[in-house]
Amino acid sequence: MLFFLQFMSGYSLREWFMRTLPLETMASVQMSPKDETVARFLDAAARGDVAKVSAVIAHSSSLINESGENGWTALMLGARNGHVEVVNTLLSKGCDKSLVNKSGQTSYDIAKFWGHKHIAGLLANSKGGNSHHLLPGSSTEGHENYFSREFLNRMSEKRTNSQWLEAKQSSPASVYILFFNLNPLVTPGTDEMSESKMEFKLCRLHWGSVKELATKPGTTLIFLGVEKRVKFASPSPAEDEDGLTAWFALNTDSSPIEDLDLSNPNSFYLKPPMPGVLRLSSDEAGVIAQARSVLAWHNRYSFCPTCGSRTKVDEGGYKRTCLKEDCRSLQGIHNTCYPRVDPVVIMLVIHPDGNQCLLGRKKTFPAGMFSCLAGFIEPGEVIEDAVRREVEEESGVKVGPVQYVSSQPWPMPSSLMIGCLAVAVSTHIKVDENEIEEARWFTRQQVIDIFTKNSQPAFTMPPRQAIAHQLIKYWIGVNANL
Amino acid sequence: MLFFLQFMSGYSLREWFMRTLPLETMASVQMSPKDETVARFLDAAARGDVAKVSAVIAHSSSLINESGENGWTALMLGARNGHVEVVNTLLSKGCDKSLVNKSGQTSYDIAKFWGHKHIAGLLANSKGGNSHHLLPGSSTEGHENYFSREFLNRMSEKRTNSQWLEAKQSSPASVYILFFNLNPLVTPGTDEMSESKMEFKLCRLHWGSVKELATKPGTTLIFLGVEKRVKFASPSPAEDEDGLTAWFALNTDSSPIEDLDLSNPNSFYLKPPMPGVLRLSSDEAGVIAQARSVLAWHNRYSFCPTCGSRTKVDEGGYKRTCLKEDCRSLQGIHNTCYPRVDPVVIMLVIHPDGNQCLLGRKKTFPAGMFSCLAGFIEPGEVIEDAVRREVEEESGVKVGPVQYVSSQPWPMPSSLMIGCLAVAVSTHIKVDENEIEEARWFTRQQVIDIFTKNSQPAFTMPPRQAIAHQLIKYWIGVNANL
Ligand SMILES: [Zn+2]
Ligand SMILES: [Zn+2]
Repeated sequence: MLFFLQFMSGYSLREWFMRTLPLETMASVQMSPKDETVARFLDAAARGDVAKVSAVIAHSSSLINESGENGWTALMLGARNGHVEVVNTLLSKGCDKSLVNKSGQTSYDIAKFWGHKHIAGLLANSKGGNSHHLLPGSSTEGHENYFSREFLNRMSEKRTNSQWLEAKQSSPASVYILFFNLNPLVTPGTDEMSESKMEFKLCRLHWGSVKELATKPGTTLIFLGVEKRVKFASPSPAEDEDGLTAWFALNTDSSPIEDLDLSNPNSFYLKPPMPGVLRLSSDEAGVIAQARSVLAWHNRYSFCPTCGSRTKVDEGGYKRTCLKEDCRSLQGIHNTCYPRVDPVVIMLVIHPDGNQCLLGRKKTFPAGMFSCLAGFIEPGEVIEDAVRREVEEESGVKVGPVQYVSSQPWPMPSSLMIGCLAVAVSTHIKVDENEIEEARWFTRQQVIDIFTKNSQPAFTMPPRQAIAHQLIKYWIGVNANL
Repeated sequence: MLFFLQFMSGYSLREWFMRTLPLETMASVQMSPKDETVARFLDAAARGDVAKVSAVIAHSSSLINESGENGWTALMLGARNGHVEVVNTLLSKGCDKSLVNKSGQTSYDIAKFWGHKHIAGLLANSKGGNSHHLLPGSSTEGHENYFSREFLNRMSEKRTNSQWLEAKQSSPASVYILFFNLNPLVTPGTDEMSESKMEFKLCRLHWGSVKELATKPGTTLIFLGVEKRVKFASPSPAEDEDGLTAWFALNTDSSPIEDLDLSNPNSFYLKPPMPGVLRLSSDEAGVIAQARSVLAWHNRYSFCPTCGSRTKVDEGGYKRTCLKEDCRSLQGIHNTCYPRVDPVVIMLVIHPDGNQCLLGRKKTFPAGMFSCLAGFIEPGEVIEDAVRREVEEESGVKVGPVQYVSSQPWPMPSSLMIGCLAVAVSTHIKVDENEIEEARWFTRQQVIDIFTKNSQPAFTMPPRQAIAHQLIKYWIGVNANL
């Protein structure tokens, strides 16, 4: 990451923070007594002075969530500089983990960005923060599914600002990702870091190399958003004056790979995108989820469904407007002009005895693989009833209570997977063979065996990137002492 | 209701049940000792013999959820015959409220259908049944939002069975509801029953009167499903042999009201449908939610978005197929061919102090009305992040934890409202004036005052049929001792 390296070259990260943070937080010359206490408190957290941090909280506990410049709290500063004990102390005293700084980052985001994995782990365990107690039900949040990371701020208010969009489009700082027939251009990950051995990376192109391609017929250009990460210092020459790095995506129907000035000659299209897109970093998976969904919509919705005429792209790629002057779609607001998101329910059904779960397999699955049942929500249907209908249709099993767990975008082409646990009230299986090949009750032990790799597995599961995997893991993890 | 009257004419309801149920449940001549005990237990529940019911459970508690013919449990029989004490006894002994009979009805459904409101209330309090304990999070289910009642079984497997569909279409038992430019044909409710004073009723037409209209150009015909209610005895002459009453909906672009053989001359189109469609019974609101969503899709999606050609209606109205032979939409499965459902987040944002909530108003709202913020989920976005983005875009307030509460279909034209509570992590309001006119924190007391009509209200709320109203009520109800 450019930003990270920028500081590494000068002095050590630790040194830089030690020096600059106290100055930042005490920038104003005239301070009230309270402001001064807050500044010292933040300074202590940034330096890792646990004793001082504890002393301040013991004296005035109300300061624990106070923030200094740019909205940075003591927890964020401790998290940024890798002070585990400071973070632990603040958490144990009930500080609010869910606060965000002026760049919209939580302490968790900061710890993750700066590579303090242990701290990120501490913060992730109840990522939502202690304001959860204000919610009547217990929240199941904290699951981050693949494809769901929001690396970019969509800045939808800029979509109608064509002047701003055009400036960003031709800015050398802007990042372009490229699709050929909806297959993203990637490079193989390096083998240096063991964790990313199998990772692909999106090719990040710039205006210079995509300029010609962008205006070709058969190419669609969409605006994705701007990077959320903070700019501490003045922008480098490669950055825009406003400090905002904009991202765009292009889809083309003719491969331009030879015409591109690619820094990595090993770049290639993920064709088909699945399962290759499951091997991106969390950040890039989030970008792909947005980009591929919107581009897939343009790919299939070039004509006005209301009158059959051609349409043009508007609002940075988030609208298509019919070119026929008297078309009904131009009077009022209609969904025909906007990208489509298809809500899908996906559910792990629990046996009434609490110790088995229902999984099914389609003919197209790899041998031995079973997964959660799933299906599209129909018009006029609520989430819970869609779960009940789909389970009964596919497996013959009747479902009682349903509980939402988490959701996941699935950009093949543009689904929103709504993940639920559900309790069966009947157990006899009668499969609809048009939908699935087989459905079966698996015991909790059979599922645990897969996770612990204890013995010969009874079946294989979808990969961790699939919400089905996460639902199964959630059920096992919460109910068993694993 | 035709079905209800059918029995009332012969003998009293009570008499009928007293006589027939014991016979039904003990139909087989040769019985095992256990079967005999179960039969006696069910008989006692049906007769309202609390002493006998209690004695059986005391002796063999495992029988409590046993069922007899057609899957009827003791609780269902008690609920059907209005025996409050039997129901209370069974509930207190931990019987499973969520079981369904072979017609898919819970005890709650049965109590409601037969008008035993007190029993329905008892059962509704934790409608999902005691299997909730198998779910790790606390479920928020039990909310039934307007438009979400599933009065019909959609029987999607019949959509591709054209022979079955055609037979049902021309059956005199089938019910047709009619829309003119998406406005439903209704009759004013009678004033006889105080509860339904303001209610409209859908005109239920039959094949004889809609036959000609159904085949006219400009008319769309869709299959909705079959009634879920049970048939106890042999079908009446007006019913189909399979006992299934099918429902269809028609939308036409030319008003045929004069040509129809309307039983009620006061019938009229709800034009515009809002707010009139909010005055239907729960059952009919559920039917409208499904019918209007699908018909609105046909109304705007007559042309293939992929190639601009005309399309034809397939699968009982749940598919449109492109008429151009070599269209890409015919290769593989594409969402261009299926009805669209637009997921929307709608959220009540709670102040970090726990005692205020954030509501906003659009310019188009009636004077003084405030409601929950809401917005469409974007491609590549999960529910929780859509909540955070929309709240920040519209009001400038940042949101931390988010909790799903319940969902609601909104058939204007085809949204799925996903209702959430959310906790703010910042409080300063900065409204996006393109989206809303004003946003404001209201205190819990101001909200309570509206529900209790205690004093001059600070604002007015959306009606109870809107999920916004239900979210606000849920927040107040769960956190306050109201
Ligand atoms: Zn048009
Ligand atoms: Zn076509």
